[in-house]
Amino acid sequence: MAVKSAARSKEISQAQPGRLSLGRLGDFVGFRLRRVQNQLSRDFAAATAAQGLRSGLFSSLAIIAANPGVSQNELSREVGLDKSVTVTIVDELEKFGWAKRERSPTDRRRHALFITPEGEAHLDELFGLVGQAEDAVLHQLSPAEMHVLSELLDRMYAACVRDDS
Amino acid sequence: MAVKSAARSKEISQAQPGRLSLGRLGDFVGFRLRRVQNQLSRDFAAATAAQGLRSGLFSSLAIIAANPGVSQNELSREVGLDKSVTVTIVDELEKFGWAKRERSPTDRRRHALFITPEGEAHLDELFGLVGQAEDAVLHQLSPAEMHVLSELLDRMYAACVRDDS
Repeated sequence: MAVKSAARSKEISQAQPGRLSLGRLGDFVGFRLRRVQNQLSRDFAAATAAQGLRSGLFSSLAIIAANPGVSQNELSREVGLDKSVTVTIVDELEKFGWAKRERSPTDRRRHALFITPEGEAHLDELFGLVGQAEDAVLHQLSPAEMHVLSELLDRMYAACVRDDS
Repeated sequence: MAVKSAARSKEISQAQPGRLSLGRLGDFVGFRLRRVQNQLSRDFAAATAAQGLRSGLFSSLAIIAANPGVSQNELSREVGLDKSVTVTIVDELEKFGWAKRERSPTDRRRHALFITPEGEAHLDELFGLVGQAEDAVLHQLSPAEMHVLSELLDRMYAACVRDDS
């Protein structure tokens, strides 16, 4: 992996929002991801401060809701968190009464995860808060641009997940 | 900001790398950013574990290198970190001997930041490590796609920064 990626381009380092130069850092997409992500996290944390939710809990609950019976391993992989973090999150979701573990009928060694009606109600509320936090940042991207952005990020993530296994 | 953004599209939620459905979460770009970012952070942390660097230290050092005399406030804004975090990072950079604060000649109340020769040497090494971590993820994006991705992320960040002030 010491080979310099063809995807790096001097051109990219020109585009930047502030008055400062990104210098060589502008060639690293990780930096751009991080600073947008930092900001969105902060907005989300501010919006949900009253609930004091652990990072990753909302995403995990949303994935469980969309995939009834999902396993902890699958959840961990899809959300992009360490398995140990996912276990802690699922413990917390059970404690709050928002999700439950059940023995898988096909494989008794694994747990199947399900959202509860209380979890559904909280998820609705959280989606409303996340939507407000994101809209403040995203309102200027067109649907076509959003689509491109999502596709590129998903391809990057698919590459991460493959590299991991 | 309660208005639903026109950028949200049902279409987007279809694109996803795993076998699981993202459900409504697929409409939130923050989730996509976060999971790629989690992965890149983990790769970078693994690559730099021997150095035990605080998150944001590398980016901050790179911005100081590209902008000799930058202020702490400008640095904080460009990297997207809280001012208090930036102060801690600059303290650490000074302790390591990688950067130094000097009184601004034009405004004695503010500090101007400069990288040291030792800092330059470490920065070179860190850029090599980050490049390897990113290449594993990005090698499949074309230069044109990287350019689009960077531009969209920078526009999002510019919107964050504006919303902040």
